[in-house]
This record gives sequence, C-alpha cells and structure tokens, in this order.
Amino acid sequence: MATGPNLLSLPNARPYAFQFPLATTALIIIDIQRDFVDPGGFGEIQCGNDEIFSKARAIVPTVKKVLDVFRSIGAHVIHTREGHQPDLADLPASKKLRQISAPNGHHTLGIGDQGPMGRLLVRGEYGHDIIDELTPWPGEIVIDKPGKGSFWGTDIHRVLLSRGITHLLFAGVTTECCVTTTLRECNDRGYQCCILDDCTQGFDAQQVTTSLDIICGQDGLFGFIGSSSDFFDAVNKSLAQSTPPSTPPILSDDGLPPIDELVSRYKKGVTSPFEVVNFVFDRIEKYESVDSAVWIHLEAREKVLAAAQKLANRYSGKALPPLYGVPFSVKDTIDVAGIETTAACPQYAYTPASNALAVQHVLDAGGIFIGKVNLDQLATGLSGCRSPYGVPHSVFSEKHISGGSSSGSAVSVGAKLVSFGLATDTAGSGRVPAAFNSIVGFKPTKGTVSARGLVPACRTLDTITVVAPSIPDARKVWQIIAQHDPSDPFSKLPHTLVTWKTDFRGPRLGSFTFAIPPPSALDACTPKYQDLFSRAVQMLRSCGGRLAPVDYTTFEVAGDLLYEGALLHERMTCIGLDFLQTKLEELHPVIKALFGKALASPPSAYDVFRDQALQIELTRKAQQTFDTLRGGIDVLVVPTTTQHPTIEEMTADPLKLNSKLGTFTHYANVVDMCGVNVPAGMYTDEQGTRLPFGITVLGGAGYDAKVLGIAAVAEEAFKAAYAK
Amino acid sequence: MATGPNLLSLPNARPYAFQFPLATTALIIIDIQRDFVDPGGFGEIQCGNDEIFSKARAIVPTVKKVLDVFRSIGAHVIHTREGHQPDLADLPASKKLRQISAPNGHHTLGIGDQGPMGRLLVRGEYGHDIIDELTPWPGEIVIDKPGKGSFWGTDIHRVLLSRGITHLLFAGVTTECCVTTTLRECNDRGYQCCILDDCTQGFDAQQVTTSLDIICGQDGLFGFIGSSSDFFDAVNKSLAQSTPPSTPPILSDDGLPPIDELVSRYKKGVTSPFEVVNFVFDRIEKYESVDSAVWIHLEAREKVLAAAQKLANRYSGKALPPLYGVPFSVKDTIDVAGIETTAACPQYAYTPASNALAVQHVLDAGGIFIGKVNLDQLATGLSGCRSPYGVPHSVFSEKHISGGSSSGSAVSVGAKLVSFGLATDTAGSGRVPAAFNSIVGFKPTKGTVSARGLVPACRTLDTITVVAPSIPDARKVWQIIAQHDPSDPFSKLPHTLVTWKTDFRGPRLGSFTFAIPPPSALDACTPKYQDLFSRAVQMLRSCGGRLAPVDYTTFEVAGDLLYEGALLHERMTCIGLDFLQTKLEELHPVIKALFGKALASPPSAYDVFRDQALQIELTRKAQQTFDTLRGGIDVLVVPTTTQHPTIEEMTADPLKLNSKLGTFTHYANVVDMCGVNVPAGMYTDEQGTRLPFGITVLGGAGYDAKVLGIAAVAEEAFKAAYAK
Repeated sequence: MATGPNLLSLPNARPYAFQFPLATTALIIIDIQRDFVDPGGFGEIQCGNDEIFSKARAIVPTVKKVLDVFRSIGAHVIHTREGHQPDLADLPASKKLRQISAPNGHHTLGIGDQGPMGRLLVRGEYGHDIIDELTPWPGEIVIDKPGKGSFWGTDIHRVLLSRGITHLLFAGVTTECCVTTTLRECNDRGYQCCILDDCTQGFDAQQVTTSLDIICGQDGLFGFIGSSSDFFDAVNKSLAQSTPPSTPPILSDDGLPPIDELVSRYKKGVTSPFEVVNFVFDRIEKYESVDSAVWIHLEAREKVLAAAQKLANRYSGKALPPLYGVPFSVKDTIDVAGIETTAACPQYAYTPASNALAVQHVLDAGGIFIGKVNLDQLATGLSGCRSPYGVPHSVFSEKHISGGSSSGSAVSVGAKLVSFGLATDTAGSGRVPAAFNSIVGFKPTKGTVSARGLVPACRTLDTITVVAPSIPDARKVWQIIAQHDPSDPFSKLPHTLVTWKTDFRGPRLGSFTFAIPPPSALDACTPKYQDLFSRAVQMLRSCGGRLAPVDYTTFEVAGDLLYEGALLHERMTCIGLDFLQTKLEELHPVIKALFGKALASPPSAYDVFRDQALQIELTRKAQQTFDTLRGGIDVLVVPTTTQHPTIEEMTADPLKLNSKLGTFTHYANVVDMCGVNVPAGMYTDEQGTRLPFGITVLGGAGYDAKVLGIAAVAEEAFKAAYAK
Repeated sequence: MATGPNLLSLPNARPYAFQFPLATTALIIIDIQRDFVDPGGFGEIQCGNDEIFSKARAIVPTVKKVLDVFRSIGAHVIHTREGHQPDLADLPASKKLRQISAPNGHHTLGIGDQGPMGRLLVRGEYGHDIIDELTPWPGEIVIDKPGKGSFWGTDIHRVLLSRGITHLLFAGVTTECCVTTTLRECNDRGYQCCILDDCTQGFDAQQVTTSLDIICGQDGLFGFIGSSSDFFDAVNKSLAQSTPPSTPPILSDDGLPPIDELVSRYKKGVTSPFEVVNFVFDRIEKYESVDSAVWIHLEAREKVLAAAQKLANRYSGKALPPLYGVPFSVKDTIDVAGIETTAACPQYAYTPASNALAVQHVLDAGGIFIGKVNLDQLATGLSGCRSPYGVPHSVFSEKHISGGSSSGSAVSVGAKLVSFGLATDTAGSGRVPAAFNSIVGFKPTKGTVSARGLVPACRTLDTITVVAPSIPDARKVWQIIAQHDPSDPFSKLPHTLVTWKTDFRGPRLGSFTFAIPPPSALDACTPKYQDLFSRAVQMLRSCGGRLAPVDYTTFEVAGDLLYEGALLHERMTCIGLDFLQTKLEELHPVIKALFGKALASPPSAYDVFRDQALQIELTRKAQQTFDTLRGGIDVLVVPTTTQHPTIEEMTADPLKLNSKLGTFTHYANVVDMCGVNVPAGMYTDEQGTRLPFGITVLGGAGYDAKVLGIAAVAEEAFKAAYAK
C-alpha cells in the first residue's frame, strides 16, 4: 500500500486499517435532509416503520461531531441532497411511479406531492433542506442530485477533481440506498472511500449490515468501513504530533499571509478586515514611491474600510465565506460596477453598470476590492510597456519589465499589495508577467470562467486568469470564479468538460508524466534561461515526474498561426473596427503601429477559414496529447518566456521582442489548453540583479485540476530547493 | 402505472408484477467473463471459496436460454466486460492496490498480474473474454468497462439512448457487485430494471440475497426482481397472442422489405444476398427508363453478385451482422475505394484509395455497395437540377424536382432501388430531397459521423446523412455509422455529447413538447403547404405532442447568417480557391453563376469574425431551446421545405427559388442541431399530380435519439392516417 506524509489511520477499520491524508480527504454527508430523517417526510413514508425510522436520526449527534472536526481543521466538507426541480423535469417517470404504484405498498404519497414539510423531495421546500444541526457553511459544497447516486445530473466529479480530493469519509442516510450507491460511484472513479459505521443508518437493519459487509467484503471490494471513535483518535493523535504552527506577526513586512491562513486568522478573531484594509493601503501608499504605474484606479481607503466594516458586521457570529476579507485587484479590462473600465485606453473607456461575473463571484465570497490595475493598452502586449498610465516594472528590478499585458495585476500581487488579482490571458498576458514577478499566473481552460463583463480582445481566445502568490491561493480563487454562466455563449457547457479517474496517491506518490519542447524550440531562450529550464526539468524528475516524448510541432504551428496567421485579426472585430479606424492616431505609439499595420493588410476571409480549419486540427491533436488513456502525457512543461528584457531593451524593439516573449505562451488558447506559471528559482544577471524564473505547466482543455495538482508538487519542490 | 400496447409481464416479480415492452427492452448480461466464472481467473481469487465459486457458473444454462429468446425475437442484447487496457491506464490506483494489500487477504494476484488465463482483467487476454456459451453475436452491444458499474468510462448511456431502450432485464455476476451497481446507475437515469434472480449469482449467499432484497425493497427502491420462468411464460404468451406475420412474397414489386425484415429473412434462409442483388439490379435497370439520371456510377451486376456470394460464404453458419446483405447507395461526394469520386463535377474528380469511414462501417456490418448516385454539383443546391449527369426527378412525378443536393440518394431509396443511402447535408441537402420523395432523411448532429473521405463543402457544417424508407431503417444505419473517429478533427469527442434521463413510458405515453415556426415564418410556404403543415401539427397533438412556445428568431437569424452572411464562403476555401478560379468556366452554369458572384464579392475577414461570433451566440441559444431542465422543448417541428417546384420552375429561377426551398433547413447545421424529414402525407396539386409532403423534426446537438424517438411516433401516426 502506498504511504505518504501526514497519513491518518483508522486502525480498526474493515477489512484493514484505512489510511488517508487529511488535506485531500473530504467528509461527505449524504442526504441528511428533513425529508429523510424528520417525521412527515419522504423517508418516513419509505421506511414504513416508526421504530426503525426513528433510529435514522440517532446518528446525527455523531455526524455533527465529525463535521465539527472537519470544520475546525478547515478540511473539505460535502453535503448532498436528493431532490427534484419544482417542475419535476429531472424526475424520471420510473422513479415517480414505481414505489407509489405498488399494489400493497405503503407509499401513500409520491415525490412532488404535498406533505406537511412541503412538496416531497422538491428543491426549495422546507423538507428538502438539510437539518438545522448540519446546515452547510459558506464554502462547503452542496450537491443537489436527482438520483440516489451523486454522479448523475450533478457536477460532483469535477468538484472533487477541482479540489484535489482523493479520499472520502462517508456519513448519512440511507446506508442501503444513497450512501452505498454514491460510494460505488466514487470507487469506480478512483476515490478511496470509507464509511463511518456509526454515522450511517438505513430503513432495514439487515440491509444496513449487509450493505456495509458488501463494501468491505472480499478484501475491500468497494472500500472500507470504519468508526467515528477511530477517526477522533486519529485526528487527536495527528494534532498532538504536529508542531504547533509558528505564529509570526499577523501582518508583517512580508505582506499578506496565504488566503487560508488569513481567513483562519479572521475566524480566530486575531485580525479583522478593517485592520487588513489599513495594512494593504499602507503598503500600497509606500509602494507608490517604488512604482507609481501599478494602479489605474485605486479605491479610497475610507470607502474600502467602510466596505470591510460592513462585511464584518454581516458575518458577525456567523461562519465565514471562503474569501472573507481577502483584498484583490482587478485588471482594468474587467468591469467593476460604477468604476470606469479603461483597458488602458482612455479613448475606449466606459463606466459599467454591473460587475463582471467573475468579480461578482469573488465579492459574494467575501473578497474586498482594492482597485483597478494597469495593463498593456487594450490588453495587447506581453511587455507591460504599452500603457498611457505608465510602465510598471518587475518587483525585482526597476530596470526590468513587469511583463504584460497584466502588468499591474502581477506587480500588485508580486509586491504583496493584495492577496490576488483577477487578470486575463489571450496569448500569454497572465503567464508572462507572473514569471517576471515570481508569482503564480493561472490561465484556466477557455470558457470555464464567465467572460461577461470582460473587454474582449479575441473573444474566442480570451480567458480570465488568476494571479496569486501560490498555487493553493490561485486554486482557491479559481474554484470560486469557475462557475458555468449560461449567458456567456463562449462558456463551455459543464457536461462537455473532461473528467478522469483520480489517483488517490496524488501526483507525487503516483508520479506523473511530462514533456518539454525540443532543443530547437528551447533555442529561443537565452543561455541563462536554457540553463534555468534544464535545472527545473531535473527538479521535476526528482519529485516524481517521468519525462516523455511529445510531438511539439502541434504547439509550434499553433503559435505561428496566432501571430503570423489570420486568427489574431479577430481582435479588430472585437475591439471595434470603427473605433480603431477613427482613434488610431490617439493610441499608444506601439499599439498604433501594431494595429495600423494590421489594418493596412487585413487577411482575406479565405485566409481566416483556412487558418481556422488548421486550428481545429491542431486543437484536436493537442487534446489527444493529454489523453492518458491513449498513451498521452499528463502535462507539457515549458519555460514561460525566453528572457527577461529591460525596459530599455523593450522600448528599443517593441514588436519583435514582444513576439519572442510569447514563444511558449501564444499557442495555449489557440489549441484550448490550460496552463499555470510556477516560480522556478532565481538567478543573478550580468549586472548583478536578482531576477525570477518561471516555468509553465500546461494541460489539455478541462484538465485544470490535474495541471494545478502537478504545479503544486513542482512549487513545493522549487520552494524547498530555493530555501536551502 | 402507465400501460401501453405489447406489454409483457412477470407476474411473480417482487415487489409486484414487472411490465415491459419487448421492443424497447434489453437483456443486459453483466461480466460473465472467463475471468469471473472459470477457474484461475480473478473471480476465483476474489471469492476465495471453491464451493461458492462453482455456483456462479451454474447460472449459465439459464442465462443462455434467456439470451436465446432475445436473439430469436431480434431484441436488444448487451454484454458487459470488466477489464482494463493493457497499459492499465484506466485502472485506478485504489482498485489496483486495495484488495491485494489486505494483510490477511486471499488476493494473491492483482489486476494486471499474469494468471493461467492471461493477465487478470486485462482486455485482449483470454480470461477477459465472455465465456464460449454466451459469446456475443455481431450487432450485439459489448461494453468494456473499467469499473464495477457500467457508466464510468464507457458510452453505455448513449448506446441505450440511441437504441431507444427503456427497460432492462439483468443477468450476470456478481449480484452484490457489478450487477447491482449497474442497476443502480440505470435506475438513476430513468431505466426501468428487473433482475432475473435465477440468472445472477455472487460470491456470498447472504450478500446475494440481501442485494436483491435491497433492489426491490421499500416498494421497489431501485427496481424489480423476477425470474426466468416468468420471462419464458410471458414471451410464449405474447407469441401465442400475436397474429402470425403475414408473409408477402419475399421480394415483390413493392421493393425491398425493411432492413430488419430483410435480415430476418436471411437468417431464416428464405432468401440470399445473391437473390437480393439480382432483384435490386433488375429494379435499377427497369427504373433507367423512368429516370436515367440517378446513378453516376453503377457497379457491375456480376461484381456485386460475387461480393454477395463472398459475404454469404463468410457468414455461412454464423450469426449475421446487422446490415448483412443490405444494398445501399452512396452519394458521389463520399469516397468508395477505387471508384472515382466526382462530386458531380468531372473537373474535380479523383479516385480515392480508401473508403470513407462511414462507408467502411456499413461494409463491415455486411452492407452491399450498389453504386454512386447523382447530386447537385459540388453538393451545392437543394434542387437536384444542377448536375452535368442529368436531372433526377421526384419518384412521384416526372415534372417535379427530386430536391438536392442528395438527389440521386433520395430517388434511389424512394424508388426502392436500395435499402438506404449514405448522403450528406450541409444546408438541407439530405432533408429536402427526402421530403420530395417521401422518405426519411436523417441528418445527425455534426461531428457524430466521421467526415473522413467526404468531399468538403463547408467542413464546419457538413454532415453525413442517412436516407431510408423509414425511421427504424434510418436509425439502424445511424447506429452503425455514428462512431467516434479520433482522426477526424471535426468529430465531437464522445464525452461532450449530451445525455438525458430516459422516460420508460416512451414519447407516446410520456408525451413530448414541440414548437413550430410562427405564422410569419410559415408564410414562406405555399397555401397548400401551410395547410398540410397545419394538419401535421394536429396529428402530432393527437399522438401526444404538447405544443409549446419558442423564440424562433434564433433560427431565422441563423438561416440568414448562412446564406446572406459570410459563413458560406467557407465553401470556397474547402473546395479550393485555386480550383474554383481556374475551372469556373467549366462548371455547371448555375454553379458557375453562384460561385462567380461569390468570388466577385468576397466578405472581409472582419465580416467572418463578426458572423462567427453571432453564430456562437445563436448556437448556445438554440441548444438552450432544447434543455428541458430549463423549461426547454423536446423538438422543433417545421415543414421541411416551402413548396414542390417543377423542374421547369426551378430552371427558370435557379437561385432565388433554391434559397427559398431552404427556409426551414438552412439553420440546422449553423446552430448545431440534428433533424429528420418524416413523410407527412400526400396531396394532389392543381395538375392532378399526387405529391408527398414532409415535416422535419429538429433537436439540439446530441439529442439525435430523442428526435428519432419522436419522429417514429409521428411516422406511425402519419402512416396509420394515410392508410385509412
């Protein structure tokens, strides 16, 4: 059996000790709804025996204790609810009719019928909800399911993958029905499962006993059966063994703590959003003297303090949402209601009435908006040197570029002025500046974050992106913003996204495969960057990665297609041909040169169709590259960019050098990949400046969680090596 | 409980009598592989007890008897096999390790390890296969599954939907594991399930008994438990009650019988492919005098007779594949190896080395290729009057057009020269000629049939299409050709296709919702067509359809986008700009005029991007129209075309009238819908000619099976009414 760090154990579990890493284990509480455990609900009707029925509710105090432990350590919690839409559109006829049609049955009422707690098993009714003792907290996952299992008609598989969950502890009702059905589904998909036998109950004693026997029989056919007492012992033992966390000053010169740590401190009451906002504004004001080109719009301190106080009041005495009191910046191509969106182009500016949906999700989760940040004009560029609002520089060097187009986003995070930023990435805009500021820039799969409220660059390529200090922080924010938006026609329908079997050992223990560009492609990098990349590859191998071959031409051709083909001319249509033609003279000189040239020699319609046909071919090839069921690799790893120019170098060669910087980023959106920049060490240049280096971990469309999982392994390894 | 015609009943089932319609019921045999029931396999290891293990195999004779009944009546049969790829890429770590890691367990060998029958549970190994007694026949479904359930990592849900299966009878091993796991999954998705208790066995008596009790407990929590004896009684009773089928002459002036009937006669030995081929060629030769413009290439009779004989020899004494000895035509834009593909354009012609994949699938299933049929040049047109190989006419009138572009396809089927044809449909080419010849023209969802070996018209819109005399025949062929092709970049990845809960009552009893175009749109039809459509709508309501509102502007705008916007210019790129420019003068006069005009005023690249953005928006809206979970309709029903012009009328107004004929077909591929023409009555025109009328049933992408299900209800109703 695989072992790893921080494994907890239930030594008395059947068929043998169940081991699980708390960090990637979720508690899943199945269907403890009023409808199933309170009198007058569907469960009482289904059970048909009052004495047996009353036993089901007896598990609740124990389940509550287990839930409290999960909450106290900030571990994953999932609640499921069986039920149907009010119009019963998701209720199969067989389910509606079978039980109620039994000639001598006790089902006097059926699903959708009116009972004392409302319509039976119908969403929104009082009886459908989870009992008061176990009411979900903000940030806990609630899966509404039309089936007895949890995988049909729900997004649970992607929810589990997105959070990196590998193990599940089961509680809930009824054992013989929804609990074991869900466990069987989880088992097929590779999750390691254990039912806590004193946290589950059913409507027939023999069926409950045998259902559990089946799960763990035959040496563990489907999983394990444990108990809550073992679980409590295991957690206590683990807490006793762990060194108490060091308690650095709450807010120090090091900047904001990681998001989870910050929210945990809020929970403990050792700091407040009010205090954090003051801290953030102090830092921002101080950084003005270092770099005055970061912000296009900074909120007034008093206004944000008032918002922070309002937030604190709202959640006083309540469970906190996942981004409670977490300060963030917004790239100035993403709408914040009532604040001008400039796209770093005053001629283009407008004041939106509503928030971009991604911004709204962050605000709903408790995030605190600090301001709008600088970018390359119209999100066009990778340099950070193309804005009328000034040229931000790398947080490591006044002379070196910050990268673009999300220049202000990367600097606001790199300088630790905010906890994270919402940026964008069409051809590398979220990854390149992340590399130049030693932060994480995560570009999710196109169409998985709503683009409503985003100034379009190329609508078929644009992706809202998260910049954050670390993979766990970026992942946290991504989980909140990656929600399907039925009103965004460019969004992917959830059922079309890929899922995969999980590996309960995680990428480190289970290993992963990765490919890299061939030497001919890496030649685009400076010798220093080639050396740094080589060392990064060694590091990936040392932490379990297996290097595998790949046909890299797919990606090279796709990159050329973007910048040398017709595809990028979508930008003119999206920005507005009229606008560009009438305002060309007023644009930033580099942008003017760029668009002027493009407008002067537009491709033909036939060029577009030809390039798009090639794009479709390449996209399919790229996706197949990551199909591990057909011999594919897990991830492609590339240097994020080729070199780190100075602002002077960039100004001297604004177009060709910009294009070169995108060598390893251009193709990702063209062929529908996701990718994340991971800081991968530092180096000293010839002038003695310490500068950061970054690699990008790329995966196929929909493989975001896998990419993040492997990137997290890499991040840990680089951090450990760099700390030495 | 819903009742309906032809319901069989297992009166002694638990919790009460199980009723099922044989036509939509499948027998599903779970995992009776050597590895599970023969000594030395994984099952013996897992069971760990020889006496118990030997019982598992004891069910086989009974299962075989049930299987024989299903085979004898031509009902659906599904086999499942648990197992993994040789590289174990689909084997979760938890499954690989859990049982073998039990400290005191009996799993001495694990999955993938070498056993006496090969590597345990590995595909392609001897032990992995189904035991000899139950070896699957050609055409029976085999589901290879990596899980204990059958839905993870397989396409079973779409397989069940595509065949219209609503009820399942279960047999197999083991009861406590794969049988009940699969049943639970089926139940959530709306399938009505029953386990035959003497056809299942497991590795623990108590677990088997209780597993069955759980399925049928609580008034039928998951389904029913019946027995084979009840099943045999039910079938015998049903056969005794049914009137023996009338036995018309095997091959009569009425033409070929339906595909199932033809294959059934082959099975009974009352006819042979040799006889059928002679019959077909006799009919074709006779029809030459009626219409000499049907075929571009007709195979030599002797060559086809030889092929038929070869086929008969190959399957002598064996189970027959589903299209055994079924003659078919191929539109001359689809490659048949070694035969010139002309696209009705001699200047374009080439001789392909291999078959189009769709053709290959049909040949593999036993189909007999007869010849290549005429079409509008370069598949451009809806009239059937644009070919240098002559103008086919409607099978109902020498004066009236056949419709196009699949003119020869529709006539070859309408005149009953072949059992079906493979055609194409980009803007209506498969539906319009079907309407004018009173046959079914089924255009599946784009990207669900491989387009490899198809001359491209617009690659993003083209769809290989089935023309056939009836919905059941079209459905049969579609099931064979709709296989994912990893090498066709325009093919949809299977997991991206929508699935839905089935309604075990079927559309007739469970009803369906449909919408129609508003009067303003129907005004495009002649008064006669308006009247016929009105009557068709009444017919749909009388057979259970509920008329529902729809925002039809989505479809109208999409139609305009195709013919008045930039999208159709993809055609120039696909056919080849060079070819069109150099050969323009040599093309059919109408095609020359059309392409000449298009080439003279090409859209700009910006027009393309703009129209494509609108296309993406409309596509999403169209798909949402069919999302019944959000209040959507099941299908949109439209008149297939607006009128039935004479060849003379068409020749006089070749462009505008052509465009008008596509009023209700143009948009389907633009916004990614599937649709099928259903003959919907006949009428007599002013000159006294009897002519057919057709409606098209349209659904969202991936809803093909639902569209076919509702179309079949409509077809039955129209046939019954027309027979009166």
